[in-house]
Amino acid sequence: MAEQTEEAQPRVILGIDPGTVVTGWGVVQAIGSTLRHVGHGTVNASPAEPQAKRLSRIYQALSKVLLEFHPDSVSLERVFFARNVQSALKLGQARGVALLAAAEHGVDVHEYSAVEIKSAVVGFGHATKQQVQMMIGSLLRVADRVPVDAADALAAAICHLNRQAFESRVADALPKRATPLLPRGTSAR
Amino acid sequence: MAEQTEEAQPRVILGIDPGTVVTGWGVVQAIGSTLRHVGHGTVNASPAEPQAKRLSRIYQALSKVLLEFHPDSVSLERVFFARNVQSALKLGQARGVALLAAAEHGVDVHEYSAVEIKSAVVGFGHATKQQVQMMIGSLLRVADRVPVDAADALAAAICHLNRQAFESRVADALPKRATPLLPRGTSAR
Repeated sequence: MAEQTEEAQPRVILGIDPGTVVTGWGVVQAIGSTLRHVGHGTVNASPAEPQAKRLSRIYQALSKVLLEFHPDSVSLERVFFARNVQSALKLGQARGVALLAAAEHGVDVHEYSAVEIKSAVVGFGHATKQQVQMMIGSLLRVADRVPVDAADALAAAICHLNRQAFESRVADALPKRATPLLPRGTSAR
Repeated sequence: MAEQTEEAQPRVILGIDPGTVVTGWGVVQAIGSTLRHVGHGTVNASPAEPQAKRLSRIYQALSKVLLEFHPDSVSLERVFFARNVQSALKLGQARGVALLAAAEHGVDVHEYSAVEIKSAVVGFGHATKQQVQMMIGSLLRVADRVPVDAADALAAAICHLNRQAFESRVADALPKRATPLLPRGTSAR
């Protein structure tokens, strides 16, 4: 009984796709197995602005989103590759303020690989950004075209919800006192 | 006359050396050509803590320092190299929250290369961390040994003060209505 109540409780996940030029965000709510689009947006940084000012803009925007939607968790892509050290440093700076915004609002962070995130919405780990964008529109029944960076963020949110639902089904199928077979959604280290 | 008054006004610079494990900070005050050590410290992150929590610790500590010492500017090392993409990403995250802390407190950020920073205190761009540490102790008359990361931060602060003093001397030597010959301390882009 307890599991069913837990299952029915809506969960709200904020996906973030941090970037040096565009940072996308998207909020998805799951009620049982139904996904509902709550909101999405992008934060655009002008290359003319000093770096610190741009990071501040990302931080302020994400803090506003966290305050408005009160997500249960934040989900974002784990990065393994970058064009070079300079782009990794800049991407790291944007990720840093996104992680900080989550921490400052007491929301835990989960990270998934690009393949896991794409597979969650397209069923194919090497899908293009446009394929993800198209499927997000269809899955979440959003009439207007979602910007690619926001679509990536919504995909990260759906990926975390799928993982949670899968873990919950596995837990239900196991004898009540057994320890879980799967590691819980890897938290950001 | 106006220039002399400006010259005599104390300037307070916060140097920051962001790092994934240890972040150093140091505050230096310049009254005319006299440098005074105001404070320094380090923020240590435990590898056992989630990344977001560690970034939050750095941000909170630097925010406290910014509130306490009201620096006129923040100075930090511009990074060109990193061991690999993963370490560049992690270093970027720490830099991101340091830059953000400065922006959130309305303090402008200046960046200098490692060679410029080391040259400012050791007169030799390829000095070791220990040489920088020793010279910082001697230059700022600090009796106790300053941790290497805090010494690097103090060196960044001194580097910015030197640059400002040099630019001010160049400006004084020029005919009054001429445009400055040198670009002003490169601001973080």
